[in-house]
Amino acid sequence: MNAATSRRELAHPERTEIRLEGVLHALSDPLRLRIVRELAGADRELACSHFDLPVTKSTTTHHFRVLRESGVIRQVYRGTAKMSGLRGADLDALFPGLLGSVLEAADAQAGRLGGI
Amino acid sequence: MNAATSRRELAHPERTEIRLEGVLHALSDPLRLRIVRELAGADRELACSHFDLPVTKSTTTHHFRVLRESGVIRQVYRGTAKMSGLRGADLDALFPGLLGSVLEAADAQAGRLGGI
Repeated sequence: MNAATSRRELAHPERTEIRLEGVLHALSDPLRLRIVRELAGADRELACSHFDLPVTKSTTTHHFRVLRESGVIRQVYRGTAKMSGLRGADLDALFPGLLGSVLEAADAQAGRLGGI
Repeated sequence: MNAATSRRELAHPERTEIRLEGVLHALSDPLRLRIVRELAGADRELACSHFDLPVTKSTTTHHFRVLRESGVIRQVYRGTAKMSGLRGADLDALFPGLLGSVLEAADAQAGRLGGI
């Protein structure tokens, strides 16, 4: 069981491997930005099934993978659920204030445009 | 002469048309980020010919167009030179602190990786 679990571990960049360009690219998609805003608002890990996105499951998986591979989120299996959480500490250590300013900008834009 | 000049005006989004996702996408490319850092450091308009980028002229033009169409820079013809300047006031009004935190993050990363 432990071996099987470890084989299901997902690849993540180390903190030192995270690149600003990759983080900005990950955040430049509306759905990925929405996922990040929900994770920031929840302030805890959320299951992928928590997110009700208007796209197919495979597209959803793709967006989570881009977020994970860029270092924005960490994903772990807990039982049968794939849980996702923001790598806020890593991002703040590398790029102080960046994630916060992007989240504030997203809130401001959603307020202006009437989005969520 | 005036008519000819006006026909050479380049298309820019109004402030209210600028979208966070587009700005983040524009900033997610290493060369475009480098252009923005140079413009921020110069704190004035610079001619495209000022930038010594390791790509073809058409690729350089493409990168400037992405920056202009996303609302990150403003480009105007002055005589025969195409001058580019950051739209810092527009971006700060829409997304307070965002551009500054991206520039600081880029500086921090360049310091870590030994880039410019």
